[in-house]
Amino acid sequence: MKREHRRNIYLKMKTLEQARGIWATTTSGIRLPTDTVPTTMGLQRVTAEPVTAKHSVPHYHGAAMDGIAVEAQDTFGASDVSPLQLVMNQNAYAVDTGDPLPPGTDAVIMVEQVEKVGEAEVEIRAAVFPWQHVRKVGEDIVAGELLIPQNHRLRPADLGALLAAGVTGIVVYRRPSVWIQPTGTELIPADRASEAKPGEIIEFNGIVLSAMVQECGGESFIQQVIVDDYDSIKLALSRAVDSDADVILLNAGSSAGSEDYTAEVIGELGEVFVHGVTMMPGKPTILGMVKGKPVIGIPGYPVSAILAFEQFVRPLLFSMQGLPAPLFPQAEANLGRKMPSRLGLEEFVRVILGRVRGELVAMPLQRGAGVITSLTRADGILQVPQESEGHDAGERVRIRLLRPEESLDDTLIMIGSHDNTIDVLANELKVRNSRLHLSSSNVGSLGGLLAVRRGQTHFAGSHLLDTETGDYNFSYIARYLPRVPLRLVELTMRQQGLLLLPGNPKGIEGVRDLTRPDIRLINRQAGSGTRILLDYQLQQLNVAPDDIDGYDQDEFTHMAVAVNILSGRADTGMAIYAAAKALGLDFIPVAEERYDLVIPETSWDDPKMQLLLDIIGTDSFRQKVTMLGGYDASNSGRLVGRWDGQRWLQS
Amino acid sequence: MKREHRRNIYLKMKTLEQARGIWATTTSGIRLPTDTVPTTMGLQRVTAEPVTAKHSVPHYHGAAMDGIAVEAQDTFGASDVSPLQLVMNQNAYAVDTGDPLPPGTDAVIMVEQVEKVGEAEVEIRAAVFPWQHVRKVGEDIVAGELLIPQNHRLRPADLGALLAAGVTGIVVYRRPSVWIQPTGTELIPADRASEAKPGEIIEFNGIVLSAMVQECGGESFIQQVIVDDYDSIKLALSRAVDSDADVILLNAGSSAGSEDYTAEVIGELGEVFVHGVTMMPGKPTILGMVKGKPVIGIPGYPVSAILAFEQFVRPLLFSMQGLPAPLFPQAEANLGRKMPSRLGLEEFVRVILGRVRGELVAMPLQRGAGVITSLTRADGILQVPQESEGHDAGERVRIRLLRPEESLDDTLIMIGSHDNTIDVLANELKVRNSRLHLSSSNVGSLGGLLAVRRGQTHFAGSHLLDTETGDYNFSYIARYLPRVPLRLVELTMRQQGLLLLPGNPKGIEGVRDLTRPDIRLINRQAGSGTRILLDYQLQQLNVAPDDIDGYDQDEFTHMAVAVNILSGRADTGMAIYAAAKALGLDFIPVAEERYDLVIPETSWDDPKMQLLLDIIGTDSFRQKVTMLGGYDASNSGRLVGRWDGQRWLQS
Repeated sequence: MKREHRRNIYLKMKTLEQARGIWATTTSGIRLPTDTVPTTMGLQRVTAEPVTAKHSVPHYHGAAMDGIAVEAQDTFGASDVSPLQLVMNQNAYAVDTGDPLPPGTDAVIMVEQVEKVGEAEVEIRAAVFPWQHVRKVGEDIVAGELLIPQNHRLRPADLGALLAAGVTGIVVYRRPSVWIQPTGTELIPADRASEAKPGEIIEFNGIVLSAMVQECGGESFIQQVIVDDYDSIKLALSRAVDSDADVILLNAGSSAGSEDYTAEVIGELGEVFVHGVTMMPGKPTILGMVKGKPVIGIPGYPVSAILAFEQFVRPLLFSMQGLPAPLFPQAEANLGRKMPSRLGLEEFVRVILGRVRGELVAMPLQRGAGVITSLTRADGILQVPQESEGHDAGERVRIRLLRPEESLDDTLIMIGSHDNTIDVLANELKVRNSRLHLSSSNVGSLGGLLAVRRGQTHFAGSHLLDTETGDYNFSYIARYLPRVPLRLVELTMRQQGLLLLPGNPKGIEGVRDLTRPDIRLINRQAGSGTRILLDYQLQQLNVAPDDIDGYDQDEFTHMAVAVNILSGRADTGMAIYAAAKALGLDFIPVAEERYDLVIPETSWDDPKMQLLLDIIGTDSFRQKVTMLGGYDASNSGRLVGRWDGQRWLQS
Repeated sequence: MKREHRRNIYLKMKTLEQARGIWATTTSGIRLPTDTVPTTMGLQRVTAEPVTAKHSVPHYHGAAMDGIAVEAQDTFGASDVSPLQLVMNQNAYAVDTGDPLPPGTDAVIMVEQVEKVGEAEVEIRAAVFPWQHVRKVGEDIVAGELLIPQNHRLRPADLGALLAAGVTGIVVYRRPSVWIQPTGTELIPADRASEAKPGEIIEFNGIVLSAMVQECGGESFIQQVIVDDYDSIKLALSRAVDSDADVILLNAGSSAGSEDYTAEVIGELGEVFVHGVTMMPGKPTILGMVKGKPVIGIPGYPVSAILAFEQFVRPLLFSMQGLPAPLFPQAEANLGRKMPSRLGLEEFVRVILGRVRGELVAMPLQRGAGVITSLTRADGILQVPQESEGHDAGERVRIRLLRPEESLDDTLIMIGSHDNTIDVLANELKVRNSRLHLSSSNVGSLGGLLAVRRGQTHFAGSHLLDTETGDYNFSYIARYLPRVPLRLVELTMRQQGLLLLPGNPKGIEGVRDLTRPDIRLINRQAGSGTRILLDYQLQQLNVAPDDIDGYDQDEFTHMAVAVNILSGRADTGMAIYAAAKALGLDFIPVAEERYDLVIPETSWDDPKMQLLLDIIGTDSFRQKVTMLGGYDASNSGRLVGRWDGQRWLQS
């Protein structure tokens, strides 16, 4: 079977370091052909030859001031006590800055030091030195001098220097041209993404890869999708190799076997140097060469595709242009939670980042190679070396930044319970001040309180029901956050209830029905406010969790619960109304609960926090929240209580 | 007189901080109109609205593995001891990763765990849970969830996330459109730069500004040059304001008065908020607004134009797109020499940077606002605040980097005597390894030795004649570099001689003629090897420096000496043959001298240094040097001597 074949290949996998080394060596000699382009069009092009000045700058002796041009010798002896008269257009000539010196003159007297005393006569009261206030030929640039070395990417000022020195055309490397070949029978073009049917996969990797090529200074050509079979891939690769393209990317569909075909085809037409890299995501990467052209098999999962591109295509595109690939910016951070990693795999973990109490904190996000939002929502990437089994919470780690370093100071970190209003808040913050950014990690209410205790978040979101008092959060904070002074601010009241398929096909009427044998629940994780709320409801009704099918199946967000129901995995689950509304599910209200922000005093005065609180108190925010459905935002922003670390104060 | 007017204006000048504040406030409300573009074309565009998912991802339940799709319930009971048979296309269906689950199935069994046992029968030896190896609807992205907030510049992965969620079109800000109006009668277009005649100034600022606009995500339209008069500027500005352009740049010619016209015209048609900023370069900047459109008067000198753009246009273009302007990268460095600065002027000093003995060292370059190569050659900019009188040598200063920070570790610093072969070396280094970079500062041979003593350079270039021994450098190093172990390596032998206008119009025959009353000399600065060489020649001939006209006029480089002669400022001067050849001057050989590299032991083992030494020893380098003329490179790379800090060792 095909699988056996793949197992063999995996035995021959290379480490990321080996693969990068092999690839760098194999491709190091490749340089792009050159082009001559007008200097005016040269921005960001890379010089393929040293460029020397065609003429000197200035290219003539010019006045450096407005005034009169004279021969310095004629002025000798002039002074306050014996002013000297000159006659315009005889031994003095009016010049403006930049004018060439009239023949016979070698100095300029500033207009402020010249007095008009007759029709044509002017008077001066000081002598001048030869070449005073004159910009002499070659003062800035001398003809023939090296202006720009080879292998230099041209910046705006470089264009100015070249043009100043009369260089109107430059020899540059051609932009690398990249052939992008998507394969896969089930793929539909990206521009039809909104019409995708079940089984149809949107071919967006081509667009992502093409955009990445563009950011490396290259041009790309996305080809028509071909089917995943040996002959089609072989035909496509032959055409690609015979085209003008400099680099060929074969992007596997997600169906089986395509990557094996790719490797076999490359091997038949040329040579495969690496097949499989011990990195995750990005393992099924293939590095080969056909007729002197690099051919890269890019994995199908989007995060894998992006990481494989960054590791192997990006350095190649730069080196072909004679440039080092710019380093990714990095920063040191404290890891927010334990991060195990598999030995023998170089793992790329997406994290959110923020500076909390002066320390940069990194919180890992979801890991799936298919989840492209794990990249778009991330602030950085933690690369766990293959010889490491991971990191402990609190360990210092180096993070590659996906956003500018300065913006980390502008990031508010929110850890805790998930609520849809947080998205609204994140967007409003950006609208108010485009520098600011809200990154959130959904770990449940209790997880949020623990993050506050460990100083890993600016604030938490929590809706923990105290089953004895019927109030929220107070007793949990008292228990879990001794010695952590903080304030509790109401974000919103919200409806929690049971989500159901539209039309309620199983006729569920309330929590009591959860014990029915034909009803399967999807629960929330332990420590989440919603789980506690459900447990409270069950307890009130004297229902034992063991009697509920699916009680031990859990998810981390309201939306995930909704998805489980929509997809038929479960019949019902507890979640907020907004989740039901978003997915068109039916909803049976169970309780209204308060969702609070838990803000440690150490964050309270942070201007970002204050802006956030300001937003929460606006009518516009309340309206947007109300429109989500299931929320009562009329008291949003209300100070619910102050905790001094030992007891609750009257506020 | 017009000057009086300008003086008034300068009294009203704003500090850089004031001007930036006024400008930010004045323009803060300006936002660009929006456009809807296909997501596939969205790279680097900025969202003008929050973007939510159109459909969930996955948008159907799909297989997450290759294998068979089953209903989990059918597999219960299967185990190693009691394998279970399933029948293909009855209760088991072949699926590849990404395929939709066939109706009635809810789990996937990996192909590795399925054994074919008959025509249609397969056997499994373990039960599966429902939804095992299934990618469920909405697992990654839920329809309606916020994908990308407003005011976000789209990166490659963002396009992928949008397309994955069915978003095929996005609302973005229009690119800011910038109208660039060059003014000045003497300007000729940049594409005619190679044909410039005396008095003609090449209009390259437009190209530079246009390139800078492009780097801020904008588009620009460079207009035909107009003459510097009130009516022309007024007409042009009126047209610009009534056009579709969002921002208007008026770029003064270098002739007098244009900036005054600009301010007056803006004032007549709209309002001037700032006229003159206490920054240098960049003082004559004008900030105004006409009919709600920002109008900026950009100074004429190229460095001034670039700095004014960076301070005022760049932040504007970003804020109009709802984005913060990215911070310029910065680093801390030790200032290599004293850097006085005028009180009341915010000064921007161009510096070269390199890491010497672990410390980043910044060496100031030339300051002229007209010298664009002071920017293109620079590695960074030191901004001296207006309340400062400058910095002392060795002071810690913050430097804005003009090259990526990582490249500073790849920079070799060379301080000392100027020689044209250094340009050749700089280029060869870049060709050998595009990461590497040679930055040089020309301060004369003695200045180079002092920089070595202070640990501010990787190596120096020196050709100091010991008039007693006739040898070079040894005695100077012994005197100036006690306790600094180093090696001396020959770079090249070279001809020094007298430079003359072509045809030798004054009939100069040798050094002895320098005392002729009709001969004017241009000298080199004290401490330069060439000055010492000339002094030695004069002493041999018993000529007193006082008898030479121009002996006290000096320049810092061979090329500057050549330019003085070409321009008629002097009749002759001592310089290397290569300088004469570059400018087509005649040359009378006076002496052959040795130019050495002075390499402290602390730099010797640096791989960059070793590569440089390797290059110096190649035939290809020797040939290139020989082609410059006046060089004998046959011993290039020879170790001349080793100095242990106390005495010279045999080598």
